[in-house]
Amino acid sequence: MSTSHGYRASWWTYILHQVPHTNFQFEVVDNQFAPQEWSYQQALLFLASIAGLCLAISLVLICVYLIKFCCCASQEDDDSKSHRVCCVTWSCVAAVIICCAGIGIGFYGNSETNDGVYQVTYSLMNANHTLTSINLLVSDTVELLSSVVKSDLTQLEEIFSTRTEFVVMIRNTRRQVESVAQQLTEISSFFWKGAELNPSALAEQVNFIEDYRWLAYILLLLLDLIICLFTLLSLAKQIKWLVIVMTVVSFFVLLLSWGSMGLEMATAVGLSDFCSDPDAYVMNQTQMITNINPDILQYYISCNQDVTNPFRQRLTMSQRALSNIHSQLHGLEREAVPQFPTAERNVLVVQGMLNTTEGNFHHLVALLNCRGLHKDYVDALKGLCYDGMEGILFLLLFSFLSALSFTAAVCSLPRAWKRFRNRDLDYDDMDEDDPFNPQESKRFVQWQSSI
Amino acid sequence: MSTSHGYRASWWTYILHQVPHTNFQFEVVDNQFAPQEWSYQQALLFLASIAGLCLAISLVLICVYLIKFCCCASQEDDDSKSHRVCCVTWSCVAAVIICCAGIGIGFYGNSETNDGVYQVTYSLMNANHTLTSINLLVSDTVELLSSVVKSDLTQLEEIFSTRTEFVVMIRNTRRQVESVAQQLTEISSFFWKGAELNPSALAEQVNFIEDYRWLAYILLLLLDLIICLFTLLSLAKQIKWLVIVMTVVSFFVLLLSWGSMGLEMATAVGLSDFCSDPDAYVMNQTQMITNINPDILQYYISCNQDVTNPFRQRLTMSQRALSNIHSQLHGLEREAVPQFPTAERNVLVVQGMLNTTEGNFHHLVALLNCRGLHKDYVDALKGLCYDGMEGILFLLLFSFLSALSFTAAVCSLPRAWKRFRNRDLDYDDMDEDDPFNPQESKRFVQWQSSI
Repeated sequence: MSTSHGYRASWWTYILHQVPHTNFQFEVVDNQFAPQEWSYQQALLFLASIAGLCLAISLVLICVYLIKFCCCASQEDDDSKSHRVCCVTWSCVAAVIICCAGIGIGFYGNSETNDGVYQVTYSLMNANHTLTSINLLVSDTVELLSSVVKSDLTQLEEIFSTRTEFVVMIRNTRRQVESVAQQLTEISSFFWKGAELNPSALAEQVNFIEDYRWLAYILLLLLDLIICLFTLLSLAKQIKWLVIVMTVVSFFVLLLSWGSMGLEMATAVGLSDFCSDPDAYVMNQTQMITNINPDILQYYISCNQDVTNPFRQRLTMSQRALSNIHSQLHGLEREAVPQFPTAERNVLVVQGMLNTTEGNFHHLVALLNCRGLHKDYVDALKGLCYDGMEGILFLLLFSFLSALSFTAAVCSLPRAWKRFRNRDLDYDDMDEDDPFNPQESKRFVQWQSSI
Repeated sequence: MSTSHGYRASWWTYILHQVPHTNFQFEVVDNQFAPQEWSYQQALLFLASIAGLCLAISLVLICVYLIKFCCCASQEDDDSKSHRVCCVTWSCVAAVIICCAGIGIGFYGNSETNDGVYQVTYSLMNANHTLTSINLLVSDTVELLSSVVKSDLTQLEEIFSTRTEFVVMIRNTRRQVESVAQQLTEISSFFWKGAELNPSALAEQVNFIEDYRWLAYILLLLLDLIICLFTLLSLAKQIKWLVIVMTVVSFFVLLLSWGSMGLEMATAVGLSDFCSDPDAYVMNQTQMITNINPDILQYYISCNQDVTNPFRQRLTMSQRALSNIHSQLHGLEREAVPQFPTAERNVLVVQGMLNTTEGNFHHLVALLNCRGLHKDYVDALKGLCYDGMEGILFLLLFSFLSALSFTAAVCSLPRAWKRFRNRDLDYDDMDEDDPFNPQESKRFVQWQSSI
């Protein structure tokens, strides 16, 4: 189960993770998240195809219902007929109400998923900021150190050339400065060696996909909403052609709803497989792509007492070298500067460099510490596996309700349409318990005469 | 305007911040967030009272409408009467639909506000975790250093008592160890001096209030929803007593809606005043309550290149002391241990202490760096001023829509009720364009005979 400090897989992740994963040969496959493996892809496609099965069942039901309604209409007795007529409009209204509830849930789910994915991209951008800050800080510091070695330390060596003990001190300082630069360069190269490590590109990619996903769902939700409203309108105003159009559109949205449900089911199960043990997958993938040392990855992914900071040795060495530089400079200032006043400026410059490097060093220690990057990692996981997952489940519910209501609508609308036709033939044959009952012009005469 | 890196006041914050603030004497007061000042409190109460004015206007409108409806009912001509009858049910239905839309917006706003406040408490708990980690790390390290000074360094001094140069080295080491302990204690005391700094208690308090706020809104939303459903039911089934009950309940919910709108308006403007310049207020309040050094607060609130780390001097001193300890131990190991093999164990223990302290030191540098705490601060601001503010504005819209729709309902329901009474007297006097038209039993006979 879950591993990271601060992130625990939720119970719905656990339940979805337990869903049996079978390939196309109906063999159970491993439920570890492995989207690159064909057997795992098959398992997800298999789950998605369940929605296809539901679609097939609903289509069969619709066919059976409509055939029964066409062929057996005349055989029913009066009482059941009156019941059915009552039923038709109410089932349309119930379908519309269920669909509206589904749309509300869908809007919420879409917003939640968007929040979750936004959290992921935000965390990735944060991690990217940390990594580029490390790189920038190291390159700035190394540049500063190199410039000091090239100019001021060389000048100091020339100034002190007559006194061997001071030259030795300067050479020691130069060695220490070079050692610090070397350590820092090595620390930076840990992150950037071999391949590119670019959370920012990943964030942009995720953002790009999410933008289209969000838009697609918004369009689907608006389509559903418009169909609901126009269905109500067509029933209320008894506009035949609108009922026919709505029936056809409802049928296509029915296909779309089952399709999106399949997609969401596969996504939810895939996400639950990822979320139940994200560390192993993230570790493997990051290492495979970026070729970073596994110790470093482990340090940032776990970030607990058991894993030592892989940079600690190098940081300690740099820290000691900086202390030694300080001692050397202190000695030079006390002993050499009174004898060589021209050296004072250079010593002050080197001291300034030391101060800046010490400040940068503290900042680098903070950036390299696992807390920041680990928090980004945990926040991303929480965004994806809490908000994102929750959103997907709400969208799944929306698709299901939408599919149910459009099945009901496709069944009911042709019957409603038939009733309109009957009414055109005979005004007396009308349904008084219909909640959408105009015929105003005819009745007003009667009503006005009675008052 | 906004100051913090990563947080910018949004445009709606800016607009709300520009709302004129006047006290009870109609004098303009400063729009800086100062909830403890009576003039500022007056300005917020004044804004809240606008909702009271709206309530008064809506009550007057309802009264005028109902009086006109009671007194002038007989004077209208047939055509306008038929129009009005048609109007009554449709205005009830429109009110219910607007109310339902408002409820949807309200649920979303409540959820957004909750998300924002959750973000605030999460960030506060994170900050608390960082502060307690600093405290724990310092106390652990100081304890470790003290124990080493008390036991191993004392034993080493006894072992080397015959050799002055080694004793001097040991005493130097002891001094450096004590210096490190001293620096660390001072760093820790910066945070905890004088008063208690307890983000956790604040988080719990905020959470406690938010739980009740959330629950109150959920209950209000559910109440609105139930009233909508029962109003529809009462109209559809023409249940007189239910219409009367719904009219009375709608009236009370109308009062509640305007009340909550006043509260939300004051909250939104107060929040916008806070969010337009949070740094100054947070800085003043934190300093007043906790008595923390302003430099430290400035460092964490700004966290940019211009503000130097206030702990840098102390950290550098500790770092140099640790390097000196390392040199001393290295010297002892090389020179003294071969002559005094019994000292080896103690030297190893002290070296172990040095390693642990260096590790802790790196961790402490990371914890003290402004990045972590500043990120918590910015996240809390974003939660409060983006999500929280947005949520409050949606709730404001919900209250407004709810108040509007209940005003319409209170106007329309008594008329609908009157129509039911008329129908009881004369079945012919009925409204055929009413979307809720039962009378099934009577009409079924007619309908069945016609088919």
